[in-house]
Amino acid sequence: MSEAAAIPLDARAPVGMVGGGQLARMTYQAGIALGLTLPVLAEHPDDSAALSGAATSIGSPGSLEALRAFARECQVLTFDHELVPPAHLAALEAEGVVLRPGARAMRFAQDKAHQREVLGALGIPVPFNRRVASVDELAMFGDELGWPCVVKAITGGYDGRGVWIFDDPRQASELFASGREFLAEAFVPIDREIAVLVARRPGGETVLYPAVETVQVDGMFRESVAPAPMANDLRVQVGELAQRIAEATDATGILAIEFFLAEGRVVLNEVATRPHNSGHYTIEGAVTSQFENHLRAVLDWPLGETWLYAPAVVTVNVVGVSETDPRANLRKALAVPGVHVHLYGKGPRPGRKLGHVTALGDDPGEARERAVRAARLITGEETGGLP
Amino acid sequence: MSEAAAIPLDARAPVGMVGGGQLARMTYQAGIALGLTLPVLAEHPDDSAALSGAATSIGSPGSLEALRAFARECQVLTFDHELVPPAHLAALEAEGVVLRPGARAMRFAQDKAHQREVLGALGIPVPFNRRVASVDELAMFGDELGWPCVVKAITGGYDGRGVWIFDDPRQASELFASGREFLAEAFVPIDREIAVLVARRPGGETVLYPAVETVQVDGMFRESVAPAPMANDLRVQVGELAQRIAEATDATGILAIEFFLAEGRVVLNEVATRPHNSGHYTIEGAVTSQFENHLRAVLDWPLGETWLYAPAVVTVNVVGVSETDPRANLRKALAVPGVHVHLYGKGPRPGRKLGHVTALGDDPGEARERAVRAARLITGEETGGLP
Repeated sequence: MSEAAAIPLDARAPVGMVGGGQLARMTYQAGIALGLTLPVLAEHPDDSAALSGAATSIGSPGSLEALRAFARECQVLTFDHELVPPAHLAALEAEGVVLRPGARAMRFAQDKAHQREVLGALGIPVPFNRRVASVDELAMFGDELGWPCVVKAITGGYDGRGVWIFDDPRQASELFASGREFLAEAFVPIDREIAVLVARRPGGETVLYPAVETVQVDGMFRESVAPAPMANDLRVQVGELAQRIAEATDATGILAIEFFLAEGRVVLNEVATRPHNSGHYTIEGAVTSQFENHLRAVLDWPLGETWLYAPAVVTVNVVGVSETDPRANLRKALAVPGVHVHLYGKGPRPGRKLGHVTALGDDPGEARERAVRAARLITGEETGGLP
Repeated sequence: MSEAAAIPLDARAPVGMVGGGQLARMTYQAGIALGLTLPVLAEHPDDSAALSGAATSIGSPGSLEALRAFARECQVLTFDHELVPPAHLAALEAEGVVLRPGARAMRFAQDKAHQREVLGALGIPVPFNRRVASVDELAMFGDELGWPCVVKAITGGYDGRGVWIFDDPRQASELFASGREFLAEAFVPIDREIAVLVARRPGGETVLYPAVETVQVDGMFRESVAPAPMANDLRVQVGELAQRIAEATDATGILAIEFFLAEGRVVLNEVATRPHNSGHYTIEGAVTSQFENHLRAVLDWPLGETWLYAPAVVTVNVVGVSETDPRANLRKALAVPGVHVHLYGKGPRPGRKLGHVTALGDDPGEARERAVRAARLITGEETGGLP
């Protein structure tokens, strides 16, 4: 609530985005319709958003000087990642730069220990956790809570990176050799994973997207199915938790909240204070895309509606399996009926997110089948006759 | 069918667009998702598409040299308008430049007399017409067919420009003072206007979009309602005519065909060989937007499906009434539920198309109400409290 309400149009861009990845690319694309030209601060001139035509400043999110220079061109800064050091965020705010989300909200995504501590204290169900800095401390935690144990990097982890599962504390000796502190967590026997997007304006107004079921492979996001097939009481509970978390973080823009469903309970998994892979389905599947609502929220404009345009909306990531340019197989994928293909312009390599495919339909299984087929035709995992 | 089938990826852009208006802007936006970076040949650096981030060459569509230089950067050229002189199109094709649509197809949009003559000879219902070059010739035509008479510029007219209705031949004396030839047409007592989009690949494969009802004000396109409320036999007839016209023109890409419904008959009004205002509704309202299908067709990729995502999809143009920047009122419009706003980045002035608004719904009247309200809030014709 410390942020100013409305932003007048002046010579600076109304909003600029730190980071030049696919989230910035799709935010840029959404901005075109609103007459916004979103400049980005990217590390490389061939970053995804730079290739989409965004005015690009080259600079590291770790450089306060680069951030300052970029901030001078924009009325408000927002982010496509959590990689700006908290001290830089604090320095920028102290200098009067408007950050949306602000440093305080970003910390919930940047510092897992802080996130667990603050949200846990508010009664949000988080996994039982403790900071550990040695094999002995992990052993004590695991012997108390039971094995296996989850160990997470407190900062810097994402998409499965920075998460380990250990059956025995000695397996973690290499990890602790760095002298760093980690977060040990009780292992949650996950039945399913759920994600909820919230868009929130500076004044606190929010809109909630329908909960989606998500599928991870090796910790990396791979699929979403909207709406998540789940019992109504759980749906209500997840929505209420998401609202409370949005309020607690005081975030502006899109907030993506991931939950575990485990033995009938809802447990918080992760919080991201930016557009998120679990919300790509909103581009075609919801009245207002997460990217447009992120811009609206960051600009303190009225938020758009979030209902679905079809009974089932399935999004499947295109993840590289080789060095093949995804555009080489694109025409095969476009022969699959009713699929929306998004390529990010990124150089192909195995394990890299190169794009995604969304399909709308009446039945989630049928829509998923089309989306998976198109994604696998692009990567070359399936081959099809050339139409 | 003279065009090559598939286009390999090489150092040149797969496709470039001549013209930098809002059609190029929205085509560029659609291309981002497909990993295409569509360069444009624009007349001014602040043309709509140039502002959207498209790599922009500055040059006039009337300059063969500018067209040649632009063609060297692209494997295929397509167009956001019909303003390239036919002789230039022919010259480019003679030099081996791949034009999609080609010069032959473009002529149907560029030369109304040719269009009427060729399509009329194929049995397509066109208004009775004759070339006239003087008041006397017009008088003879009108006395034979009855007054009022419609007089059209044979080339260069669009969006109501280049069309006159005369009750008396003497009213046309100023027009004929130029010595130019015009097309005189029998006045059609229009009940309603209908538009149909066809996307067509070089090999002849087509997909047809649902017919929409359109509303013109002073000859300028203002609204579309999809699907057009019309009797099924007329719907079938319109679809068949559109298919036959697509075949006759041998066009590649989007072909927009406008019809009059007059006393239960279908009469051809206009043919455009490019994305069209009557298809803006497809961005959110149809499975595949006209802009994506234009790119797919021009690249000879499989065409996307064309069914509607809602029972009613209404698009209303934002037409300037003053010098007010449409972005100034944007936030008011975004408070209207479920509207998709598109601004073209164009400088405001009365009578200029500055953007459009699309609303999906179950009922066309209700959806139209929302779209009209949002459009009028942007222009300032309506005022609303600041949300």
